[in-house]
Amino acid sequence: MLDKITPLILCGGSGTRLWPRSRAARPKPFLPLLGDRSLFEEALGRCQGEHFDRPVVVTGAAHVELVELALVRTGRHAEIIVEPRPRGTAAAVALAAVRLPDSAILLVCPSDHHIGRPDVFTKASHEAATLAEQGWLVCLGIDPAAAETRFGYIQRGEALDSAGFRVRQFVEKPDKETAAKYLSSGDFAWNAGIFCFRGGDYLAELEKYRPEMTAAVRAAAELGQTKDSCFHPGEAIYSAIRAESLDYALMENTDRAAMVMADMGWSDIGDWQTLKRMREQDANGNSVRGSGNVIDCRNVFIETDGPRVHAIGLDDVIIVVDGDDVLISSAAGSTRIGELGKEAEK
Amino acid sequence: MLDKITPLILCGGSGTRLWPRSRAARPKPFLPLLGDRSLFEEALGRCQGEHFDRPVVVTGAAHVELVELALVRTGRHAEIIVEPRPRGTAAAVALAAVRLPDSAILLVCPSDHHIGRPDVFTKASHEAATLAEQGWLVCLGIDPAAAETRFGYIQRGEALDSAGFRVRQFVEKPDKETAAKYLSSGDFAWNAGIFCFRGGDYLAELEKYRPEMTAAVRAAAELGQTKDSCFHPGEAIYSAIRAESLDYALMENTDRAAMVMADMGWSDIGDWQTLKRMREQDANGNSVRGSGNVIDCRNVFIETDGPRVHAIGLDDVIIVVDGDDVLISSAAGSTRIGELGKEAEK
Repeated sequence: MLDKITPLILCGGSGTRLWPRSRAARPKPFLPLLGDRSLFEEALGRCQGEHFDRPVVVTGAAHVELVELALVRTGRHAEIIVEPRPRGTAAAVALAAVRLPDSAILLVCPSDHHIGRPDVFTKASHEAATLAEQGWLVCLGIDPAAAETRFGYIQRGEALDSAGFRVRQFVEKPDKETAAKYLSSGDFAWNAGIFCFRGGDYLAELEKYRPEMTAAVRAAAELGQTKDSCFHPGEAIYSAIRAESLDYALMENTDRAAMVMADMGWSDIGDWQTLKRMREQDANGNSVRGSGNVIDCRNVFIETDGPRVHAIGLDDVIIVVDGDDVLISSAAGSTRIGELGKEAEK
Repeated sequence: MLDKITPLILCGGSGTRLWPRSRAARPKPFLPLLGDRSLFEEALGRCQGEHFDRPVVVTGAAHVELVELALVRTGRHAEIIVEPRPRGTAAAVALAAVRLPDSAILLVCPSDHHIGRPDVFTKASHEAATLAEQGWLVCLGIDPAAAETRFGYIQRGEALDSAGFRVRQFVEKPDKETAAKYLSSGDFAWNAGIFCFRGGDYLAELEKYRPEMTAAVRAAAELGQTKDSCFHPGEAIYSAIRAESLDYALMENTDRAAMVMADMGWSDIGDWQTLKRMREQDANGNSVRGSGNVIDCRNVFIETDGPRVHAIGLDDVIIVVDGDDVLISSAAGSTRIGELGKEAEK
């Protein structure tokens, strides 16, 4: 009988490629991009049921209210840990781990992606937890659909006796050529940033490769305080930690890395073009969310938070109205939205 | 020495081709489409100076406040006549004429167009007034720039001894083929709807061709009342008049019609495409009014009353943000804006 899994939901970020919908004050996890629930609410929803313990949410001070609102709306309870400044996933996960028993099985879930088949996610989580109980540091791997350069890749090693594999290597975001090689080799998976391990194993490995970070996290946890039901680590010491991703600080170094493949309809909804493909479309490829009106249009995407959008005679255009910003971009132009968002949200 | 001219400014309408900027509650004359002044303010500005008397403005009840605001803003005084319902230009002009001496020289000025060379307008007005003093009903003619089907045409007859011509015929909006013939003949001018005549001459001719209308207007004027400095004709009788244009009711019938050509940079700013050509453009043909931002764009037109518009990678697109409406149209699609406007402003 498997121990219960403690979901550790990481919730923050400042994705700018979905600007102006995604903003510094309300980043991607808090947007209902598909359906009625935000990506954070989707993450909460995926991690419930008899096999899951009460989740831990790590977020930033700017987003605590949004997290609490989502918990109220979904009727869930969670421990909230507030990072005074974002210091990367390695420290964020360590901070949660030091506050839980070493034996707790943590499932690290970013909340900036969509999972179309949550049942497959549940199954893969259990397989990962089984390996975690054997001392593995497990990641979920996604069968790559394209030679994508926006993700890290994981190379598969020998099969383990259960559903998983050893990891041969973690690789950072490759260039286009390398990504194409990975894709054709059939040996590589996308790294979705979902991990499963026992808290104690994680801390022991992190201690090995990042002893200073681990010590700093422990000290910050000891100096921390609970205010308004949220745990705040010691600010000065936590803020001084060098920000590193869990992948880079630990997974690339450890020889205890394993992988479970999860064909779970994963998408990071990396930009408006991607979201457009995922939204329901009419016979002409148009998709409208909010008050919109398409006349003689093809492949037009409209998202508006209020104003009525009237599109006439357009082809392959993204239109997003949010607050005081109106974005209108050709398909080709959409790669520049990120820059625009960064500039606007400065 | 010429008598002073009384400008008779017609101000109303519900142009929908400049929707959503032009709306039922704030139609084209009240929009500052070029420069800082509305077209109505431009019309007021053209008709001032030593040769002009205090103007008379005919408008609808819905627009009296906008008229008064414009008068305050420009520091002008005018007699305001309020039509209970719009009954066409023939009746509107008659209503003003019956309240003025028969000898008054009226200059009928619609306020839904732009005149780029007001000095030429002034000169042409004086020429027209000179003919009006001789008993002619004078229209200003515009040298046609294209085989336009949106305007009525005026065929030139023999030259008069001053700057004008007799009118051979007035013709309603022609089809494309006929318009092309008119253009190549060199004999036709566009009818800009600007007329000059003595009030008494106008009423006498109208009496001849539209005796019922003339009688109704006289009765409505007699039953009228001045309230809040505006003259309101008798509502029931005025509202029952059959709406007809001055052109149709009178100019097409009279043999006292004359024309003065006026190369005065006239444009009715009939749609966004036309306005786009008239606005200042950057090296890539983009023109932005309000808070707008063009990236990799060509021939993009932006007009926004507040929200920031960010356009990326677009070619030949019209973008208008007004109140709660956002219009985005291709060049080809822009002919459908009128329908959209009619539907939206119902």
